Amino acid sequence: MKPTLNSPEPAPLLAFGAHPDDIEFGCGGVIARETLAGRKAHFVVCSRGEAGTHGAPKQRTAEATKSAALLGATIEFLKLDGDAHLEVRVAHAIKLAEIIRRVRPSVVLAPSLVENQHPDHARLGRLVRDASRLARYGGLKKLRRQKPHAIEQLFFYAVTPDAEPREITPVMIDVSEPEIVATWAAAMHAHASQTSTRNYVELQLTRARLLGARAGVGHVIALFPNEPLVFESLAHAGRGARRF
Amino acid sequence: MKPTLNSPEPAPLLAFGAHPDDIEFGCGGVIARETLAGRKAHFVVCSRGEAGTHGAPKQRTAEATKSAALLGATIEFLKLDGDAHLEVRVAHAIKLAEIIRRVRPSVVLAPSLVENQHPDHARLGRLVRDASRLARYGGLKKLRRQKPHAIEQLFFYAVTPDAEPREITPVMIDVSEPEIVATWAAAMHAHASQTSTRNYVELQLTRARLLGARAGVGHVIALFPNEPLVFESLAHAGRGARRF
Amino acid sequence: MKPTLNSPEPAPLLAFGAHPDDIEFGCGGVIARETLAGRKAHFVVCSRGEAGTHGAPKQRTAEATKSAALLGATIEFLKLDGDAHLEVRVAHAIKLAEIIRRVRPSVVLAPSLVENQHPDHARLGRLVRDASRLARYGGLKKLRRQKPHAIEQLFFYAVTPDAEPREITPVMIDVSEPEIVATWAAAMHAHASQTSTRNYVELQLTRARLLGARAGVGHVIALFPNEPLVFESLAHAGRGARRF
Amino acid sequence: MKPTLNSPEPAPLLAFGAHPDDIEFGCGGVIARETLAGRKAHFVVCSRGEAGTHGAPKQRTAEATKSAALLGATIEFLKLDGDAHLEVRVAHAIKLAEIIRRVRPSVVLAPSLVENQHPDHARLGRLVRDASRLARYGGLKKLRRQKPHAIEQLFFYAVTPDAEPREITPVMIDVSEPEIVATWAAAMHAHASQTSTRNYVELQLTRARLLGARAGVGHVIALFPNEPLVFESLAHAGRGARRF
Amino acid sequence: MKPTLNSPEPAPLLAFGAHPDDIEFGCGGVIARETLAGRKAHFVVCSRGEAGTHGAPKQRTAEATKSAALLGATIEFLKLDGDAHLEVRVAHAIKLAEIIRRVRPSVVLAPSLVENQHPDHARLGRLVRDASRLARYGGLKKLRRQKPHAIEQLFFYAVTPDAEPREITPVMIDVSEPEIVATWAAAMHAHASQTSTRNYVELQLTRARLLGARAGVGHVIALFPNEPLVFESLAHAGRGARRF
Amino acid sequence: MKPTLNSPEPAPLLAFGAHPDDIEFGCGGVIARETLAGRKAHFVVCSRGEAGTHGAPKQRTAEATKSAALLGATIEFLKLDGDAHLEVRVAHAIKLAEIIRRVRPSVVLAPSLVENQHPDHARLGRLVRDASRLARYGGLKKLRRQKPHAIEQLFFYAVTPDAEPREITPVMIDVSEPEIVATWAAAMHAHASQTSTRNYVELQLTRARLLGARAGVGHVIALFPNEPLVFESLAHAGRGARRF
Repeated sequence: MKPTLNSPEPAPLLAFGAHPDDIEFGCGGVIARETLAGRKAHFVVCSRGEAGTHGAPKQRTAEATKSAALLGATIEFLKLDGDAHLEVRVAHAIKLAEIIRRVRPSVVLAPSLVENQHPDHARLGRLVRDASRLARYGGLKKLRRQKPHAIEQLFFYAVTPDAEPREITPVMIDVSEPEIVATWAAAMHAHASQTSTRNYVELQLTRARLLGARAGVGHVIALFPNEPLVFESLAHAGRGARRF
Repeated sequence: MKPTLNSPEPAPLLAFGAHPDDIEFGCGGVIARETLAGRKAHFVVCSRGEAGTHGAPKQRTAEATKSAALLGATIEFLKLDGDAHLEVRVAHAIKLAEIIRRVRPSVVLAPSLVENQHPDHARLGRLVRDASRLARYGGLKKLRRQKPHAIEQLFFYAVTPDAEPREITPVMIDVSEPEIVATWAAAMHAHASQTSTRNYVELQLTRARLLGARAGVGHVIALFPNEPLVFESLAHAGRGARRF
Repeated sequence: MKPTLNSPEPAPLLAFGAHPDDIEFGCGGVIARETLAGRKAHFVVCSRGEAGTHGAPKQRTAEATKSAALLGATIEFLKLDGDAHLEVRVAHAIKLAEIIRRVRPSVVLAPSLVENQHPDHARLGRLVRDASRLARYGGLKKLRRQKPHAIEQLFFYAVTPDAEPREITPVMIDVSEPEIVATWAAAMHAHASQTSTRNYVELQLTRARLLGARAGVGHVIALFPNEPLVFESLAHAGRGARRF
Repeated sequence: MKPTLNSPEPAPLLAFGAHPDDIEFGCGGVIARETLAGRKAHFVVCSRGEAGTHGAPKQRTAEATKSAALLGATIEFLKLDGDAHLEVRVAHAIKLAEIIRRVRPSVVLAPSLVENQHPDHARLGRLVRDASRLARYGGLKKLRRQKPHAIEQLFFYAVTPDAEPREITPVMIDVSEPEIVATWAAAMHAHASQTSTRNYVELQLTRARLLGARAGVGHVIALFPNEPLVFESLAHAGRGARRF
Repeated sequence: MKPTLNSPEPAPLLAFGAHPDDIEFGCGGVIARETLAGRKAHFVVCSRGEAGTHGAPKQRTAEATKSAALLGATIEFLKLDGDAHLEVRVAHAIKLAEIIRRVRPSVVLAPSLVENQHPDHARLGRLVRDASRLARYGGLKKLRRQKPHAIEQLFFYAVTPDAEPREITPVMIDVSEPEIVATWAAAMHAHASQTSTRNYVELQLTRARLLGARAGVGHVIALFPNEPLVFESLAHAGRGARRF
Repeated sequence: MKPTLNSPEPAPLLAFGAHPDDIEFGCGGVIARETLAGRKAHFVVCSRGEAGTHGAPKQRTAEATKSAALLGATIEFLKLDGDAHLEVRVAHAIKLAEIIRRVRPSVVLAPSLVENQHPDHARLGRLVRDASRLARYGGLKKLRRQKPHAIEQLFFYAVTPDAEPREITPVMIDVSEPEIVATWAAAMHAHASQTSTRNYVELQLTRARLLGARAGVGHVIALFPNEPLVFESLAHAGRGARRF
């Protein structure tokens, strides 16, 4: 049931972002935690951030590439409708499903579905959710060249605090280890064009410290599972996050 | 963070029930799963079922004792206000906290807080939740003889399907192993006074099969965590429950 | 207010499905119940299931045709975007509204709006909901050839348990009569391509038995009304579903 | 399943109110509708309104007695903890269960459970919900002299608009008939001490008109079922409430 | 932080409607209140109501123009996909963002996001929400000719009672002043084609009286803020709406 | 409608806490903001913290007294059931109502009603909500010596992040002014017994900074209104909290 636990090489993690810095700001600490433990991670970034107030596409691409490397992840850029122009089209979901079949991850990460955030975020989240299904349907013509693949779990991350869904009980990933926090911070700072005018890095670390304080550890990142989680026994089902 | 995982003897599991058969019908398969894996389990039953339509208190006590033994659990009966008479009183919560300090469990199980079920169920759930806190407060005079104890996690179980809370994402425990299902069924059948007129056992196994079908396994019992769960990494965070 | 109740021939029921087997698996027992009582039923199936893992389009069409006949319903196939390709377009809603104006049903059935299921299901549900409105607007040019029609009620059905909406109180339809259960089961088994590898039929009957147990009858199918229900008096407003 | 529908004399309706005017203001039109159709109705009023700003207990008792008569209902007063002093005690629920066993109603009406209203309202609602269960448990010593009774359905009414629960889909009862509206209005005006300073009657009729406009009729009162409603077929399941 | 409070000329209010009468019926009283206080108001109407049952496009345009004038607002018509044909396209959101940058409002009003209403309403609401973000992103090529603009707040209005969102705490605007009520009523009556067959005006005034009764004033219109509201102190944070 | 806005001396603010430090940690910055602006504030603390792990009752009383003084508030201690022993009794609500009638505040602050926190917090919140009603009922014998008083608004504060209610849209109070932050921090540090082992002060300031970042200011405290807020116009209704 959980082949990734004991296998010599766990299945890779696949993370999708709408903009060059979404993955890092939303769940960079989790990526660092996983690659540090020897898991492969791959990023798919669906725009060059060309509609943002700061940073030219070329610079943003370079920043994302550097940041992924710091986190130990590989990266690719996928052109869909462009920054601030993303729409929910089946054709996009099929492209994402194609990547899922190629990378064959156990865990997929995508921006949350909360609508009241940057419109690209929730739309990409919906596309990834649909793509995770399409990836395992056998009859899809456009995907015929690749073997169907069923992922183990889809988790949503929240790029900003108000993107945290209220109707899903989160899963808390402990990222307190100093090496992880440092790597995460470095990866966020690599997006220099975004951190020059506003303190995004501090915002994210503050969020993680606040959740960590609640859970009795240093830093925590909350992920939101798309499906209830199945465990072999209670011994595997984590511990509760409450210290205050 | 998860000392129970590798330690030679995991901390015991403590389950509370309002009536002699609540624990078995609500989560007996999980108990069987845990004791089979070598964990100790202890039941606290807070009435003798004396207001029920079927079964005298003496018979119900005997049934519960036999059933607990089948599940590999120890059992004690605690008199609070009596069957169908339970009220939410701090004095009760303190008694329950005393038991928590004595048993020193990592996991506590209690009936869910959904109000629209047998009134004793939700009230006991609230008392256990409060007791789990009181058990770790250092200054409580009445609990002074016992060292404070912080549990790892409180899970709620649903005695019937309509007692499943809608606002908590459940955790699914796989209880498909034939030995577990058989033990669970036997433990429910031990409550002969309750199963003679209505097919409670079938109801519970049907629920477990339906959840199992959803998760791609044989039988599953859903538990509802009182707090978000903390994990060391994604590799420990289970897999998603979706097969249809 | 409820002219269908006493009229010699009640207005027909109109059910929409995204795939050849959705209606049968989601609410086939209700269809059997209604046609048995002399009501006409018509199915509109919006793909040939061509993206599914099992069953070629031709076979699936034949299966659906046979299954509808078993349930006493007529059937038509409507090409929209194709299986796993459905998008929410006004042009689609207008086509569905055209069918509503033609069939002039009192009750319309559609897959639920829960997003976390096969993407075609929720999208078709939204299209049908919109179509039910468009069908009664007088000024729509493309619908001008047909007289506007106001349906009495739109109910959503859930193809799988996780498609049951949590924020709508369901209406429980008693389908316990042996003849109804048998007809429903036969109609599901008619989709042989879908039932060969997974026990879909058992899944649905188990769901219905579980709901039935809750309501004190044999089998129940839950439907989810799009609007609150209006009754002439309390004597018409059903009875509560609780037996445990 | 719905024996009340065709039986010569339907089982009575039993309505509980925390104060002398709660039933009338919350659902008086429904009472008028039912008694007009030949159903018996009985009111249980659990205080004399002695904490209210206007009206002495004696006057309020007289007003309630007159108002019940106008609605064709019998009435009794039950002393629990007194106006504005009601607490949720099992002893109270047992008293209410005793009345349920005596009156043997099919339908029970109680104030809604929404907490943010007069505290007596929600507490009485909870007591009635618990009493409806206790009334059918066979082993309760204090209720032993009366045969257990299972009601068909418990509906909650909202004394004021903000007491309408948001998480239950309401059932709309059409009370548009002029005779019903007139009787309801007269019953409300009978509470002269309460209507002299504020326009409570207008508030309630306005609510009913607004809901009626939504449903395409004159006046509607919304009731909130404690359990999903079971119907024998779709033909019995009402029609949707939407006209705008 | 609240420059509009003391500034000689407050920033204008910008209201979007899907049909010629949506703004007036949904929140006309608020518009009257603001223009009476000297604030400029501008309407953007995104169809001519050409799919409605009553009223030709030309008549509806004239009615809307007259109605806006009565409310002291300017008006423009924007062609998107046409009445009953609106789809959520980024190109539309960009057009709306262009208007926001041109008008530079502090407050924006849009129809609510509740899905179960006229499909154009919720879709326009989503487009306006997205547009409010796009208006402040610096890098959007198509908007390059206009300076980015950040609005102060986006409020949703509900064209009909069932369009009121349940998950947002509303803000209540007191529109009791006789002059405001009269102006609002006149503006609604200006839509003669819509008010001839159904009493829409009465419906809206009834809604406002019901909310007013709750708040202890004559008439109130509820608006639903897209973001939590920030205040400089409690003295600025209004008073609670409860009188019954 | 908002007499406190322009009156020379605004009505006092009344804050209730279950333990000596609840008010300060939950909303101390708001208190500082109000007293700095010349409003009187009064604290009612309902235990001496005698069940806590750290700090003897005497020390805690002294700390709370000092802390209130730092915030410019007066303080009184009220004995109800004792720390960790609070129950929801009408007799308690009447005592709190007596204080409300004596102090005659416009705004009342109380701990939130979220159940999954220290049990005393939610219970005190419920008692204060009930008390706010009882304070304005004219007929209550035990309150007869004091004139009824209707407060303007009840706001809930969250002592810890997990006590923030999810179903109420918060109101954000800007407490960024350096003098306010410093006063608030000092008031929290005055509870030396509570801050010696865990970094409660840092937890609260982090929360406020995170909310502030969201709102585009330095520090924000969220309050949760018990009733929708009524405003005279949009110009008074704050601005939206979104900067990211």
